[in-house]
Amino acid sequence: MDAISQTTETDPARMTASAASALIASRQLSCEELARACLARIARRDGKVRAWLWVDPDHVIRRARELDKLPSKGPLHGIPFGVKDVIDTADYPTTQNSPIYDGARIGRDAACVGIVRGQGALILGKTDTVEFASGGRKALTRNPFNGAHTPGGSSSGSGAAVADFHVPFAFGTQTGGSLIRPASFNGIYALKPSWGLVSREGVRMSSMTLDTVGWYARCVDDLILAASAYRIEADNTPVNVKGLRVGLCVSPVWHQIEPGGEIALQAAAKRLTEAGAIVENLDLPTPFSGLHDAHTAIVNSEGGASFLPEYVNAHALLAPDLRAKVENVLQITRERLLESYTLADSCRPVLDAMFGPSLDVILTPSSAGEAPLGLHTTGDAVFNRMWTLLHAPNVNIPVCRGPANLPVGVTLVGKRLADARLLAIAKAVAPVIDSDPDAGARELWA
Amino acid sequence: MDAISQTTETDPARMTASAASALIASRQLSCEELARACLARIARRDGKVRAWLWVDPDHVIRRARELDKLPSKGPLHGIPFGVKDVIDTADYPTTQNSPIYDGARIGRDAACVGIVRGQGALILGKTDTVEFASGGRKALTRNPFNGAHTPGGSSSGSGAAVADFHVPFAFGTQTGGSLIRPASFNGIYALKPSWGLVSREGVRMSSMTLDTVGWYARCVDDLILAASAYRIEADNTPVNVKGLRVGLCVSPVWHQIEPGGEIALQAAAKRLTEAGAIVENLDLPTPFSGLHDAHTAIVNSEGGASFLPEYVNAHALLAPDLRAKVENVLQITRERLLESYTLADSCRPVLDAMFGPSLDVILTPSSAGEAPLGLHTTGDAVFNRMWTLLHAPNVNIPVCRGPANLPVGVTLVGKRLADARLLAIAKAVAPVIDSDPDAGARELWA
Repeated sequence: MDAISQTTETDPARMTASAASALIASRQLSCEELARACLARIARRDGKVRAWLWVDPDHVIRRARELDKLPSKGPLHGIPFGVKDVIDTADYPTTQNSPIYDGARIGRDAACVGIVRGQGALILGKTDTVEFASGGRKALTRNPFNGAHTPGGSSSGSGAAVADFHVPFAFGTQTGGSLIRPASFNGIYALKPSWGLVSREGVRMSSMTLDTVGWYARCVDDLILAASAYRIEADNTPVNVKGLRVGLCVSPVWHQIEPGGEIALQAAAKRLTEAGAIVENLDLPTPFSGLHDAHTAIVNSEGGASFLPEYVNAHALLAPDLRAKVENVLQITRERLLESYTLADSCRPVLDAMFGPSLDVILTPSSAGEAPLGLHTTGDAVFNRMWTLLHAPNVNIPVCRGPANLPVGVTLVGKRLADARLLAIAKAVAPVIDSDPDAGARELWA
Repeated sequence: MDAISQTTETDPARMTASAASALIASRQLSCEELARACLARIARRDGKVRAWLWVDPDHVIRRARELDKLPSKGPLHGIPFGVKDVIDTADYPTTQNSPIYDGARIGRDAACVGIVRGQGALILGKTDTVEFASGGRKALTRNPFNGAHTPGGSSSGSGAAVADFHVPFAFGTQTGGSLIRPASFNGIYALKPSWGLVSREGVRMSSMTLDTVGWYARCVDDLILAASAYRIEADNTPVNVKGLRVGLCVSPVWHQIEPGGEIALQAAAKRLTEAGAIVENLDLPTPFSGLHDAHTAIVNSEGGASFLPEYVNAHALLAPDLRAKVENVLQITRERLLESYTLADSCRPVLDAMFGPSLDVILTPSSAGEAPLGLHTTGDAVFNRMWTLLHAPNVNIPVCRGPANLPVGVTLVGKRLADARLLAIAKAVAPVIDSDPDAGARELWA
């Protein structure tokens, strides 16, 4: 699904951002045409997929026309973005899928939104999310591959909107596995950048240590395109899959793997080996096995501070599982929290140091398996939490379908702050391990 | 300056929050009377002190009357707070002292504000600040003790407003020394809580690793009162100054001390020793001497991500020193940033472990000396940066006047997350080391 083949598509909504960007730059496609194509797709599909909370077509068209009048602001000029509704936007409400903030308008873009808007991006609307990206209510969004299944969460609407060709880009956030897991479930690409590279200003806070903003796209080139807006400059050092040193990490929670996740990880490893990569098992040092529980302690303790405003001001409307964080129902002591911080802080440089002559990238599951049946769940972040806590960059790459014919991906993990290198590796690796033959042209359930 | 002596004051604006709270609870003082007293003080003084950017007296009186009609929401009911103008408020603009956000209204309280407002606090207005609490323009605020001197920064207006009896409480933020240094320069108390205990949601982000919300007050009891709103529960285990184990830490930057800072530290140590405390020199392990430079690397690198939205959208209006962060003028490499993270991460548990049978609290300078002359500077955070990076709780306690007859304080440092214990120690220690004889009744320059 590279940029060139996409230009042969007649529906601009199905183009990658990179392909559309090239056509807009050469005046073969207008911002308005692209916007209308995305809006038409949403109009046709979102009654079923329910990815969006707020889209104002008239407003979007006006903005697109304005962009068509302006000189280009760069490669994102006119490119549509969806925004998870825990992220503030100047022109739409930010409800956080909470009744407490029903219809709430802030009037200021979150940093991540303002940065791409200032470079010409077209903010299409707001996508449904698990309440506060943390607990409480689920999104209404359905998996585009099978409406009986969840698209994952908490970035439910963003993942489904990109998979279902509503937008080429959407922002999500990850505290546990809220970016990578929906990418796996929806057969798309995602970047969870290194902690600190993308400002979280204007994004609902859940955990100071864990919250990370990232984005979805339908190819690695697009992930790189969006990254460049955040000054994560493209790494053009050649990557040869032949000889690439890949550490296969089944992770300390491998006992929770499901058939779909196992098939995807094995398929990715096999394809990489066949392409000449050197795939070797990577055993993490023993202390890493404590990171999963450390994540639990941190996310619950820090959540207590994060949800205190709603606990004080809107107690009855705050979901019980979020009230439980404020009340410290898990009885996490200060000493336990300090131990958790210290464990994570000490593991991060150990992970950093693994990368070098004997390791280019880590390959690990993105999800236990395929998207679970039902909308009462968004699946489990069990395979993501450790990497979030380690602050390392993660990319999801789709691999194959599982037993239920739903997509499953794998995660590539890079060295902290070496996001550009990870993206370059992902770009080389993706054509090898992403086997979905009809990804660009697929017609999803109707 | 304890609560009881304050109740003898006739001007409610000079009362501590604890004293006013007791009178409001017993209906001897109305919320409106307290608000009017604060507004009168502001009307009389702020033409000179210039602590405030936004105060709407009519709005404040309406809110106060509303609070007088309501049943008490707790000990903060009717207690006025000033809010540093990098912190969002539902009812005032948040300009961040930047021309980019001149008059900008958000319509939503930052977490720290919503939490006290929901417990009855009266938000009085917004206080002047260094631009974005980070660089660029200084506040117009003058030091209440001598208008020719800075009140410090970046929480300039908040520090001066509390010192000059405009409000009993004001919020500030600290990334380097922006809470503790103004407290030292203005002869007041401040708590910089442990990182993570108080949500930063809705507070202008400058550095994800460093930014911390805290508050000013005119006594330790008031610091404790505000802390309780954030579920930092009072620690009522008795503290006996006799036998208290105090580690005197001149810090790795002692060569930058000035006469005022040295006098204050020595006076505090001497008074504690005379009161029976066991004051012994505390030598920090060698790696701690790298923390100051690590702070520089982190604050500049993370600032690059934080100021990118303005760099993209309002380049000409962003101050050159903030543009320099985005442009990485200091040429901080990723490896240098990782080393800085790792150093800080490894020092934190070492500091935690120092506390125990042989150490109750650390005593260290709050500022190099007295407030410098002129409003072109806010002084230097050199004595604060290390502690901010260590995420440990800090309390400033006023000690004495320096050679220029301006206040100088000292910092008490506690174990991470043991803020309640630190506050209990500060309460016991303050009467011993705070010698300003006329603190409660002082009339400042007119």
